[in-house]
Amino acid sequence: MSSRSRVPRPAARRLSLYLRELKLRARDGSATISSRQLGEALGLTDAQVRKDLAHFGHFGQPGVGYRCVDLLERLRMIMGIDRAWPCVLVGAGNIGRALLSYRRFEEDGFEIKAVFDRSRDIVGTTIAGHKVRPIEDLARGVASLKAEIGIVAVPADAAPAVAAMLVDARIRGILNFTPCRLDVPAAICVRNVDFSVALEQLAFDVSLAAAQDDES
Amino acid sequence: MSSRSRVPRPAARRLSLYLRELKLRARDGSATISSRQLGEALGLTDAQVRKDLAHFGHFGQPGVGYRCVDLLERLRMIMGIDRAWPCVLVGAGNIGRALLSYRRFEEDGFEIKAVFDRSRDIVGTTIAGHKVRPIEDLARGVASLKAEIGIVAVPADAAPAVAAMLVDARIRGILNFTPCRLDVPAAICVRNVDFSVALEQLAFDVSLAAAQDDES
Repeated sequence: MSSRSRVPRPAARRLSLYLRELKLRARDGSATISSRQLGEALGLTDAQVRKDLAHFGHFGQPGVGYRCVDLLERLRMIMGIDRAWPCVLVGAGNIGRALLSYRRFEEDGFEIKAVFDRSRDIVGTTIAGHKVRPIEDLARGVASLKAEIGIVAVPADAAPAVAAMLVDARIRGILNFTPCRLDVPAAICVRNVDFSVALEQLAFDVSLAAAQDDES
Repeated sequence: MSSRSRVPRPAARRLSLYLRELKLRARDGSATISSRQLGEALGLTDAQVRKDLAHFGHFGQPGVGYRCVDLLERLRMIMGIDRAWPCVLVGAGNIGRALLSYRRFEEDGFEIKAVFDRSRDIVGTTIAGHKVRPIEDLARGVASLKAEIGIVAVPADAAPAVAAMLVDARIRGILNFTPCRLDVPAAICVRNVDFSVALEQLAFDVSLAAAQDDES
């Protein structure tokens, strides 16, 4: 495990992009992929790809590239996602419902074990096979399910209180779908999913493409 | 515009992260931010922050840092998001509904001008103030609304056909919420929002934190 913590953060961030590309390729039936192909798909140089993957040992064969299945398996192991990650979901609104019907999570080892909400109208109803539980049961649920990840998909005003409850329940990571910045102890990992950021990046891409057209 | 196209891609990608952090700070009432603070918030060195921002000219003052409002405005201009970006949404399922009620989009200049769906049960209903139109009207809608961005939030099996329709309608960018890789001409920009990637990155963070705990 110790080599993992010495990987530079940007390289670590790219690993899951490699993983995603490899999954697409494997699904398309590709047996191998070169560092050049991986780089092209992700907007990186092949030297960068080789350097990133070299942090974790050598898997590629010169002239052949990487075997997709092997590299996938290796990346999953390195990333610590070659095992199941039990999750709880807080918030059964539109985003929560979309996540519950998102089958890819389970394929990837992320199983939503329980769903919590504060609304009396929603608690007790069943969504995609999950009976929604009252938010008051969150701490007990996290403990009994040994959940490590909490997915926060509540309205922004409820986010700080939900985060505090998850911290108290000794969750280890939070996936935050609200626009709030969550104030949690440093030992708890937080990733924010912000749709505005994705749109801004896209708009920037379009602007760049237009600028390049103007130049050519 | 020409300087924009010469920015390295990873630096370009970080701009919207700077933007997000600055928006949070400005909302919290901060007048200034240092490159160290920006770096700490985003897991970058202050040297990296200064280098990134230097691609676009010098805005910081030694010992004072950046004025949040000025830097925000400058970044928006650089990213081409200091103007409105009319969008269309295809798919009025759970994700589509969540996006329609996501108020931050409009604050940030991304206005969803029209919503399209293929389901006869949904077409004609009103969601968050938008009357859902039939998918057959997509090309006409894109043209008449001068939409530049198409948001694809349909089931995976419908994604290739919807992407093709958006291409025919001369959209410039696609925000793809499906797990499909969209096959579009190179001139059309695509950004993928993949919830699995965010979860994988989070699980990786948690694994890294655990590895560091083991070492200390």
